[in-house]
Amino acid sequence: MAIGSRREILGGLGAGIMLAGAGACASATSSRKIGYAIVGLGSYATRQIMPNFAGCDHARLVALVSGTPAKLDQYGAQYGIPATHRYSYADYDRIRDNPDIDAVYVVLPNAMHAEYSIRAAQAGKHVMCEKPMATSVAECEAMIAACRKAGTKLMIGYRSRFEPYNRLAIELARGSHVGPTRFITAEHGFSIQPNQWRLDRPLSGGGSMMDIGIYSLNAARYLTGEEPVEVSAIESTDHSDPRFRTVEDRVSFVLRFPSGIVANCISSYSSGHNGYRVIGTEGWIDMEPATPYAGQAMTIRKDGVTAPRTLAAPAKNQFAGQLDHLAESILNGGTPIVPGEEGLADLRVIEAIYRSAAERVKIRLGA
Amino acid sequence: MAIGSRREILGGLGAGIMLAGAGACASATSSRKIGYAIVGLGSYATRQIMPNFAGCDHARLVALVSGTPAKLDQYGAQYGIPATHRYSYADYDRIRDNPDIDAVYVVLPNAMHAEYSIRAAQAGKHVMCEKPMATSVAECEAMIAACRKAGTKLMIGYRSRFEPYNRLAIELARGSHVGPTRFITAEHGFSIQPNQWRLDRPLSGGGSMMDIGIYSLNAARYLTGEEPVEVSAIESTDHSDPRFRTVEDRVSFVLRFPSGIVANCISSYSSGHNGYRVIGTEGWIDMEPATPYAGQAMTIRKDGVTAPRTLAAPAKNQFAGQLDHLAESILNGGTPIVPGEEGLADLRVIEAIYRSAAERVKIRLGA
Repeated sequence: MAIGSRREILGGLGAGIMLAGAGACASATSSRKIGYAIVGLGSYATRQIMPNFAGCDHARLVALVSGTPAKLDQYGAQYGIPATHRYSYADYDRIRDNPDIDAVYVVLPNAMHAEYSIRAAQAGKHVMCEKPMATSVAECEAMIAACRKAGTKLMIGYRSRFEPYNRLAIELARGSHVGPTRFITAEHGFSIQPNQWRLDRPLSGGGSMMDIGIYSLNAARYLTGEEPVEVSAIESTDHSDPRFRTVEDRVSFVLRFPSGIVANCISSYSSGHNGYRVIGTEGWIDMEPATPYAGQAMTIRKDGVTAPRTLAAPAKNQFAGQLDHLAESILNGGTPIVPGEEGLADLRVIEAIYRSAAERVKIRLGA
Repeated sequence: MAIGSRREILGGLGAGIMLAGAGACASATSSRKIGYAIVGLGSYATRQIMPNFAGCDHARLVALVSGTPAKLDQYGAQYGIPATHRYSYADYDRIRDNPDIDAVYVVLPNAMHAEYSIRAAQAGKHVMCEKPMATSVAECEAMIAACRKAGTKLMIGYRSRFEPYNRLAIELARGSHVGPTRFITAEHGFSIQPNQWRLDRPLSGGGSMMDIGIYSLNAARYLTGEEPVEVSAIESTDHSDPRFRTVEDRVSFVLRFPSGIVANCISSYSSGHNGYRVIGTEGWIDMEPATPYAGQAMTIRKDGVTAPRTLAAPAKNQFAGQLDHLAESILNGGTPIVPGEEGLADLRVIEAIYRSAAERVKIRLGA
């Protein structure tokens, strides 16, 4: 079963193309697996992404890109990637000449996302890029333009969109299961360890907001299906803490949406949070934890009764679902449900959040 | 047992007076009960306050003030209040001549709090005033000045300060039980029924913020023990809803405190909320519900373990505790833990919240 529903996978296309795509689907998706090159062999790539190709129906790992030869050797041997399919960053543009590589997955520090995504597009490869899409709106726009010019797909690694509890929460929230939504609260944070690129602004582009607060922002957007029209943010950072010399610790941000929904959001590098709540006129939908790698828990209050809502374990986990979704979009000619425009939308809000925090004003967005 | 600890009751006094007060306490508090006149016989007064004099050690109901003769008859008969101790608003100033009345409890619509509190002080009576203390900072200051001039006590009806779970939450939060506090979330709201004075700005002074959002604000202040230095607010109100012709529905407000703690707060007249969470560096303290008349529930996450924290039922409920606390302050010469200055502090922030919401700026408070 495809993780993305047909409607979502094909949502960006016209009706005529939808029918053609639907007709071509069964044979196309069963004929071959899309080959991915993983760009950047850090913890997330090696522990979360690479092991999950084993659970994919339409994606396979075919190449590795790293600046560390020992990592290329280690993971190349582990995953059976021949020397011809292992690349240094100096070699990176040569992926153009490797027909086994259909797509790259950019899992580099944030400030390198734009460059390595654009070079992939220029090499004719489809692009999966980890969140945050980039460190600025301008970079996001350049990435979208490069992929459009090259005719390649661009998808952002918003894995929660392929996780069943989050998909159910979206369905329930947008379907007014607890009445029309009035408020959303969304909170993400952890206590960050020192001495890593995430705390080095030239590589990260920012602090907790870029890394973990973006989950709160993205959840507020996907639970409403709307784009905020007003943003206010307050930052609180102890810059004497050696972790926070160049990046922010805590950000509290509030979003107002066109329908009147207000989202109160938290981002933190010094306290633990992982959850959101959708509060409607008749009750609420609570997820805590909401966006871990596994172990989501949902509680619903409706008609005066508070009860857990439990789903059966999915056939495919969120990581495999995400990898397969881009593969299916490539095979079927569809648009990913989290395309570059989705990453751009988050960066637009993040830039407004930073500006509101710095300038002590609330920011109007949109028309 | 006194609900207020000795330290809190006597916190406003010098050490020498504290000793004198402590020595005088046992005999003074056992000698007689403070007589209260209830001003305004609405639902809260008749259902929550008046029945709870039965649980008081130091307070008794001795007089009633109402504009509705039938209510004076009904509740006068029910509580054995003689006709000589029943007053109309026209008669109100005659409480001066009734030595049985030590204190009044003002439970009128918000816009009448200042006038009836000041007139009570001018009649030489101590004052308990329901929250919000008044509808403006200026009114609060006038109330404080009037009570100071008359030499009478002034206390605001913040009942949660006499409720054991909230008292424990304060102790745990300020004592860094889950590490130093980083964030507080506090949410209060309900779906309001139409056609009541709370929805009529001339009587209420404002919408949800004045009535229910003040619980979120007050909790953020009592859980930190600090006064906010920065305030940002976003309002969301559907003024085509007949309930919200003159007052606001939803307010989201964020407070930054001097220690860096940030509080994300919700106030709503169209969705149900009652809770707060204190998030420290090592875990969190969650209360949901936090401020109902009864049934508080606390959950603590610490050292990776999430568990409920249950307290034995108190000997005295929060309503009796509140009534007794002013009585003890009168008998012992102490300052209430929630004096007029506490109500004023909330109104200062509420005015900043309204200004931030209206003017699309963040507001700096304090020095």
